[in-house]
Amino acid sequence: MSIHVRPLSLLALSLASALAHAADEPAAKHPSMADVIAASKPSDWRAIDPQNLLYVDFAGRSRVVIELAPAFAPKHVENIRALAREGWFDGLALVREQDNYVAQWGDPNGDDAAKAKKVKNAKATLDGEFARSDKDLAFTPLPDGDVYAPAVGFSGGFPVARDAKAGKAWLTHCYGMVGAGRGDTADSGNGGELYVVIGHSPRHLDRNVTLVGRVVQGVDQLSSFPRGTGALGFYEKPEQRTALTRARLAADVPANERVDLEALRTDTDTFKALVESRRTRHESWFLEATGKIELCNVPLVVREKKVPDTKK
Amino acid sequence: MSIHVRPLSLLALSLASALAHAADEPAAKHPSMADVIAASKPSDWRAIDPQNLLYVDFAGRSRVVIELAPAFAPKHVENIRALAREGWFDGLALVREQDNYVAQWGDPNGDDAAKAKKVKNAKATLDGEFARSDKDLAFTPLPDGDVYAPAVGFSGGFPVARDAKAGKAWLTHCYGMVGAGRGDTADSGNGGELYVVIGHSPRHLDRNVTLVGRVVQGVDQLSSFPRGTGALGFYEKPEQRTALTRARLAADVPANERVDLEALRTDTDTFKALVESRRTRHESWFLEATGKIELCNVPLVVREKKVPDTKK
Repeated sequence: MSIHVRPLSLLALSLASALAHAADEPAAKHPSMADVIAASKPSDWRAIDPQNLLYVDFAGRSRVVIELAPAFAPKHVENIRALAREGWFDGLALVREQDNYVAQWGDPNGDDAAKAKKVKNAKATLDGEFARSDKDLAFTPLPDGDVYAPAVGFSGGFPVARDAKAGKAWLTHCYGMVGAGRGDTADSGNGGELYVVIGHSPRHLDRNVTLVGRVVQGVDQLSSFPRGTGALGFYEKPEQRTALTRARLAADVPANERVDLEALRTDTDTFKALVESRRTRHESWFLEATGKIELCNVPLVVREKKVPDTKK
Repeated sequence: MSIHVRPLSLLALSLASALAHAADEPAAKHPSMADVIAASKPSDWRAIDPQNLLYVDFAGRSRVVIELAPAFAPKHVENIRALAREGWFDGLALVREQDNYVAQWGDPNGDDAAKAKKVKNAKATLDGEFARSDKDLAFTPLPDGDVYAPAVGFSGGFPVARDAKAGKAWLTHCYGMVGAGRGDTADSGNGGELYVVIGHSPRHLDRNVTLVGRVVQGVDQLSSFPRGTGALGFYEKPEQRTALTRARLAADVPANERVDLEALRTDTDTFKALVESRRTRHESWFLEATGKIELCNVPLVVREKKVPDTKK
């Protein structure tokens, strides 16, 4: 039996194969996600502001790239920028890897007041930013409902829930979302200890923690660490932790060291077509097309920007 | 700042800590999951039939234990038993690890007709078992709805969706669920290549593939392999694959080599209390209690059976 038996669909389809479809082929009646991406226009994509891109490097792993979400957590994003600029993250470690839940980094000496790392210019604590006003918020709704919120959809490339009656919107705990750890009070975090969702979406955390962004490259690096065997997935021995060697804003590294990423906009007809291609599956493998999609199953596509060929 | 900042809840709470609560303490007004488990009676637990327990061993990893679901996929379960008994799985490999999706094992030589492993006594293909009649099905419904199905809940310890109008029920693709890979036709799988969900629930696969069971121990072993870099997360080089050394039914190994597991029943008041403890969070860390729960966020608790102390 072939190992290429495909129980599954093309969630991880490579952009290369998507782009292999010539854009001038006749439009398919039911375009697949690959077709939709191949037919996209440059205006369907947005460059990601280097002020909102955080590069996080762990020893022996490829770079993790996070897009920050100042529209939802302006104070935390500002503080994460300040923390990165003062080198706060450099020398921390991955302290927690809890299966079907989160990977989290922090100060391995945080329990020892004498050795614990001190914040310099950044703020040591911040008020929680659990939800924002939905006024003037771009919002592309999904049509199929949600267990946790009155409405869900996308805003500025992020998965979002909305309660129009309360006039509120908030980021949601989908796979790859990044949050700021806190203690028992709402104002006890500062963005200096971040966690990333690496399992089924723990949506009960929505509005309980400040989400600050999303991993747009390298989430597979974070999800594949050995699981911690202590309570809540914390590593029990120092040697089990992986060092966080360096975190920097893209804006603070030389241009030639940046990865130029672009994200598929979530407020376009192309994005609507992408959602539709995943709601109702017409690929030959699918026997049941489903006709529904849940928020965290919508792929948010990010790719490396093609550098224009200036030699021609 | 303490590394014990808890952005998160007690999903992975250890049974040890749960049991540390004395069972004769006064019942809490809003029991936590740990409280519910500590207060459970022996009759709230079910032993898992060794005929339905598959031990899968990968080189250098702890044992993975799967509970098979004959109530939903009787032919596949029967065939998996036959495959295990003829040693089909022994010597296969983990061939695919796709981030936020699945881990999958199969025959690394499956593409080479001359070298491909042949099935002996088991069946080489089987009709799909995508859904069953909901007649006479024990079903504990959840109250908060679902994006993909008219109703969801639990049956015999498994997460289940139900369409009462159509008279059908089916297993759902939650984290840790195990499915039988197939080709383009419904009857092209046989249970010989199994995949395990290791990311956000890909519920669009429901009723497209035969789900055969659930990992009840060791899913963290499967979710932490390096991701495959080929299309669909397949490993590109033979040396990247991990050998599947042996798979056996618990019933076929000597009693002293078995792990005696028991699972919290899903048809009891104790289970209802557990669901409630996760729907509405009263732990001090939670500022927003949520009051809803989605199918794949309900913990299905399995523990090693306590051996009665016969020395007393």
